[in-house]
Amino acid sequence: MKLKNKPRGTVDIFPPRSSIYQKIQQISSYVLKKNNYQLVIFPTYEFTELFTSSLGSTSDVVNKEMFTFFDRKGRSLTLRPEGTASTARLICQNKLVNSNNPLKLYYWGSMFRYERPQKGRYREFYQLGVELINASGIIADFEILRIAKDLLETFAIKDFTFQLNYLGSEKTRERYKKELKSFFSNKTDELCSDCQKRYQTNILRILDCSYCFGNFAFPSYQKSWDNEDNGYIEKLNQILDSDNFPYTYNYKLVRGLDYYTGLVFEVKLMDKNAILGGGRYDELIGKIGDKSLAAAGFAIGIDRLVNYLLDNFINNSTSIDIFFLALTEQAFPLIFTLQKKLKKYNYVSDYNLTIKKIKNPFKVLDYYLPRLTIIIGEEELKSDKILIKDCQKKKDFFVDSKKLIKWIDQYLTKSLD
Amino acid sequence: MKLKNKPRGTVDIFPPRSSIYQKIQQISSYVLKKNNYQLVIFPTYEFTELFTSSLGSTSDVVNKEMFTFFDRKGRSLTLRPEGTASTARLICQNKLVNSNNPLKLYYWGSMFRYERPQKGRYREFYQLGVELINASGIIADFEILRIAKDLLETFAIKDFTFQLNYLGSEKTRERYKKELKSFFSNKTDELCSDCQKRYQTNILRILDCSYCFGNFAFPSYQKSWDNEDNGYIEKLNQILDSDNFPYTYNYKLVRGLDYYTGLVFEVKLMDKNAILGGGRYDELIGKIGDKSLAAAGFAIGIDRLVNYLLDNFINNSTSIDIFFLALTEQAFPLIFTLQKKLKKYNYVSDYNLTIKKIKNPFKVLDYYLPRLTIIIGEEELKSDKILIKDCQKKKDFFVDSKKLIKWIDQYLTKSLD
Repeated sequence: MKLKNKPRGTVDIFPPRSSIYQKIQQISSYVLKKNNYQLVIFPTYEFTELFTSSLGSTSDVVNKEMFTFFDRKGRSLTLRPEGTASTARLICQNKLVNSNNPLKLYYWGSMFRYERPQKGRYREFYQLGVELINASGIIADFEILRIAKDLLETFAIKDFTFQLNYLGSEKTRERYKKELKSFFSNKTDELCSDCQKRYQTNILRILDCSYCFGNFAFPSYQKSWDNEDNGYIEKLNQILDSDNFPYTYNYKLVRGLDYYTGLVFEVKLMDKNAILGGGRYDELIGKIGDKSLAAAGFAIGIDRLVNYLLDNFINNSTSIDIFFLALTEQAFPLIFTLQKKLKKYNYVSDYNLTIKKIKNPFKVLDYYLPRLTIIIGEEELKSDKILIKDCQKKKDFFVDSKKLIKWIDQYLTKSLD
Repeated sequence: MKLKNKPRGTVDIFPPRSSIYQKIQQISSYVLKKNNYQLVIFPTYEFTELFTSSLGSTSDVVNKEMFTFFDRKGRSLTLRPEGTASTARLICQNKLVNSNNPLKLYYWGSMFRYERPQKGRYREFYQLGVELINASGIIADFEILRIAKDLLETFAIKDFTFQLNYLGSEKTRERYKKELKSFFSNKTDELCSDCQKRYQTNILRILDCSYCFGNFAFPSYQKSWDNEDNGYIEKLNQILDSDNFPYTYNYKLVRGLDYYTGLVFEVKLMDKNAILGGGRYDELIGKIGDKSLAAAGFAIGIDRLVNYLLDNFINNSTSIDIFFLALTEQAFPLIFTLQKKLKKYNYVSDYNLTIKKIKNPFKVLDYYLPRLTIIIGEEELKSDKILIKDCQKKKDFFVDSKKLIKWIDQYLTKSLD
């Protein structure tokens, strides 16, 4: 390379891998649309304050991982580290909630965190996020879980289980923090230096620490639940059970951001990496805009999903349906006419852009691997018969040029059966 | 707002506008795939050097409009101002060209330019780009024009004309620059201060200046064409004419970036804003990677396309197909079951997440405007008949709950006829 490679931690996504991203985007748009969720697209960067105020100034995302820079007027901007704060800002600024009805939105895009790059963890990574705004209650919580499950099932992911936890009301959260405080009161020396700070500033965040998390038998969140919390859990479990929903409780799950309030959840794949996570965040929108709105949502890590799908069962065939092989320059106008006629069919076609004077003009077919090759040379242009090769079955056909398109469609449809 | 609004020049794209972005993305992916073009996704930021070296250090994009910042190690990064340089870097770094065959790629994403925001011109804006790599010659040039026209036609844009120009070989370009130099030699005082610099450093860029462009009768590029250039133009025109391709020559069109070499083109909408532009850039890839590759491509400005489509003929109906109105909490399990059964159909459905004790439970229908409302109250749960309302035709039906899904599908299909 004369110039430098791409910056560290970013990814280049190209064929055939890129087609998986595309299929995931198309399929999820379809599933979400059917459930009346609609797309939002927010800026790639926001004023830094949006994230520091909403994600929690002591969270790792804000503290260590933000991509922050200054514009020409010295204002601090940050590349979005996640999508919920931006969605909330977009809803408030554009006053999208103007009734008592829920607002169902989703987004698709890259997020940015200045982390140490690892397999499946990049500095620029892709997320699909789903948000249910202005809706509270158990059915709303179940709705968001159900949409998450629907998507995972649509992607043909097998054997997944949702890990749930319930952070409860402000009072419950305070009780759990007290519990944690007393648990660590005589163990602060054993905490890593970051968590010693967290012990003082935001003790819940100790549960996000990959170092400390394995070293202690953290108190269970369940102990902090009161009657109301237990009533909620019981009712939710009833609905989940009647739906055969795959779930289990993880009483140490708190998720790494400050904005979660009630239900939180996560799905891990067999490699232990979380592929989906979310929860309720009833206090976030009130911090950003003028009125408070209950909300819940989740995000799916697309890069990890693509890795899983590629590892497990996606066949990356790059073959095309039809290749037009021009043997003379005079063949091109006919090829363009044939391609125009093929527009209404769903076939992938290609052709050679130059006439190469090489011994074997058929060598190009090893590159394109077409199901059918239509050969157009001087003879074919003079006669009304065109030579078609089925390259896989190694059969040749001479087809009347007027009936060519119909013949191709019938042949390709039949050979799929 | 408690927190600040979005940064200046960025856009929030939300329903119903966002659905147009989505449709354009889906339709263009479909058209491009059929023509064997495949998606690439490159990072949002690159090392600044990639753009300064390839777009031209005296171009407005590089000189005035780049979003440049430093990472934590002090390396200069820039939010991509366009997609061709990134695509070229991706191809070189990942060695995607390893045969004599052309590589057909496209990208979709936001680009960043620190310009004064105006209607249809944002600091973060969306582009669809199409690139034909490792291909030269007239058929390759026509291929890229043809794909561009195919896309515009697919978006139902009417009455468009491609403005073409031919920058020709290195020698031709030098001849035109000389012509310009002598044209301005006694007029430099009349140029704006930027163009006085351009006169010295990169005279071609004077043609991009919105201020100076209207003030002078610039020499025509046609005068600089030699026999070879004229031969190319003649042959290209033949192909364009035989295809009824809508084109005209604009002998002052040079496009604002340094990397163009041969054919350049642009399509303007009725409001005079360019919606599509591109050309051949045979020297760009050799400046970035280890080997030189001929290439051509174009980009479509998606925001302007969306504005055009919304202004001209898109009907933004937000109604849904089916609304399930639960009148009691016991109705939810049945609604979830019905929605599961509807999965294989292509209908948008929604339901109320809470049972509101209000006088008129049907008021919610004014918000959702469903074609059909399925009402499930205590009576419906006890009997085996379910009440369905056609809200548009104001008709009621009582349908056997076992036959419900089939009935809905038949009714909705029929009412579309």
